[in-house]
Amino acid sequence: MNEFDFIRNYLMRQPRDAGVVLGIGDDAAVLRPRAGFDLHVSKDMLLAGRHFFADVPPDALAHKVLAVNVSDMAAMGAAPRWVLLGAALPELNREWLGAFCDSLFAQAARFGVTLVGGDTTRGELCFSVTVIGEAPSGKALRRDAAQVGDDIWVSGCVGAAAAALQHCLGRLALPDDVFAACEQALLRPEPRVALGQALLGVANAAQDISDGLVQDLGHILRASGVGAELYADNVPVRQDLCALLSDEWRYRCALAGGDDYELLFTAPENRRDAVLAAAAQSGVPVQRVGRIGGQGLRIFDRHGKSVQLQAGGFDHFA
Amino acid sequence: MNEFDFIRNYLMRQPRDAGVVLGIGDDAAVLRPRAGFDLHVSKDMLLAGRHFFADVPPDALAHKVLAVNVSDMAAMGAAPRWVLLGAALPELNREWLGAFCDSLFAQAARFGVTLVGGDTTRGELCFSVTVIGEAPSGKALRRDAAQVGDDIWVSGCVGAAAAALQHCLGRLALPDDVFAACEQALLRPEPRVALGQALLGVANAAQDISDGLVQDLGHILRASGVGAELYADNVPVRQDLCALLSDEWRYRCALAGGDDYELLFTAPENRRDAVLAAAAQSGVPVQRVGRIGGQGLRIFDRHGKSVQLQAGGFDHFA
Repeated sequence: MNEFDFIRNYLMRQPRDAGVVLGIGDDAAVLRPRAGFDLHVSKDMLLAGRHFFADVPPDALAHKVLAVNVSDMAAMGAAPRWVLLGAALPELNREWLGAFCDSLFAQAARFGVTLVGGDTTRGELCFSVTVIGEAPSGKALRRDAAQVGDDIWVSGCVGAAAAALQHCLGRLALPDDVFAACEQALLRPEPRVALGQALLGVANAAQDISDGLVQDLGHILRASGVGAELYADNVPVRQDLCALLSDEWRYRCALAGGDDYELLFTAPENRRDAVLAAAAQSGVPVQRVGRIGGQGLRIFDRHGKSVQLQAGGFDHFA
Repeated sequence: MNEFDFIRNYLMRQPRDAGVVLGIGDDAAVLRPRAGFDLHVSKDMLLAGRHFFADVPPDALAHKVLAVNVSDMAAMGAAPRWVLLGAALPELNREWLGAFCDSLFAQAARFGVTLVGGDTTRGELCFSVTVIGEAPSGKALRRDAAQVGDDIWVSGCVGAAAAALQHCLGRLALPDDVFAACEQALLRPEPRVALGQALLGVANAAQDISDGLVQDLGHILRASGVGAELYADNVPVRQDLCALLSDEWRYRCALAGGDDYELLFTAPENRRDAVLAAAAQSGVPVQRVGRIGGQGLRIFDRHGKSVQLQAGGFDHFA
């Protein structure tokens, strides 16, 4: 099997998408965006040994590669539409590729995206995905739109992926059942696409939590030119995990862990009901974890004591 | 310097682009395409040791990384507009990054593209670029539109990049001055953006030559469901290089070499004057090298003798 057989046999098998004038197989894909919508474009690279273990099952890998990119659309309130997949693969192994592609297309269908192009080459396992989405013009959830007085919200639970990773690295010992649940969060994150879109016109600023809640909140604060208070013990962590962790480990996983792909967003206090309605509509719980205002980021525990973090989050060059 | 300093200090420094609602720094870039235009989207991955030598000067590398992607837009007749850059870098070295980024932005300005996003991570040197362009709706130069009776044309000269590579690999010995000229073709290919757009409504099918003329012509033939005759000695090769090479080496470099980024296109015989006018307008010479028709691809030399190629072109998994 060569590169071109792979493209023909594994990648060109999708249902028709009215926005795709020309899909896989030419120099470029040709797309026809809808009038009145802005395009949202993002790309993320994932390298074996850095962003995932090289021996991760191919179906989980395909899920994650797609999900972390689709999550960027969720964080903008955009509907993901199209994806381009760049892949460096050590070899073209039928079994591996079959499992990878089955999972990729299953998830793509679930997220509502069509694979329209990409590039494959031989090399150390590495993926680079570009995702393109649409949102009504001018309505995106930006990082730079947090306002003083906004509540800070988090969707779902955070910290589980980081706990699973720490377990794999031998730094934290989790019981089998808790590890299994946390490993799912690490391997198969669920981008909050419906919630992101439901928050259009409700939230002010948003982003997804990939590098760690505190570091990602820092991006919003810097972009918006504001400070914040964060209530560390309000940050939602799965109960079975929470019950096992010391405060220090819990803060470390939940505040500085990363790989959560939950939404971190701010909204005015007078829109709390609208936030909860958006959460209910999209079937994702949300939790208030802080408030925009003041200078810098101050983190407090349930007793009002200041919490100092050892590490701020994930820096891809640290 | 960390990832975020790098993004702020090296990447956020471009002139305003009216189509960019939101550029680098959020979860996604927000773009506003023009009504009446289709979007063209393409991505190419380049790995050290496979697509370029790891010690290539950073300014040449930036040029090539951008040029090979912009070339995909040229091959569709699209105007390149926006670029996302994914980069895995072994380290954040100021001097290297400075030279890389200076060249990247200089070329981006020349090609008319704005860098709107991307992703950096630590890893073996690897780039993944996504380029987005626009062309009037429904007008793209596709691979599947070649018609029986069309002339086959090539822009510029081909084979020089392959000759330089073969020289570097010790398989071909070129004199210094010829090598220097060929190395420029390898390091700094010139995407034929103006020619591609000038060929809209003139050419039927087009693609850029990246994997080797014969292999890339094969893509057009397969997609269009046609055969062709190719006149091997009409394929344009730089004169100083041509004078040095045996027929076998010339065919190998010019027909099966790759990395040329010239345009390969077909156009009806009655549009020869229009093709030449498009070439003159864009300042790029073009040459007729064959004709669409018959079964499969037949290659002939200047005596009408059949030419057999040893290798068809570049397969990224060969």
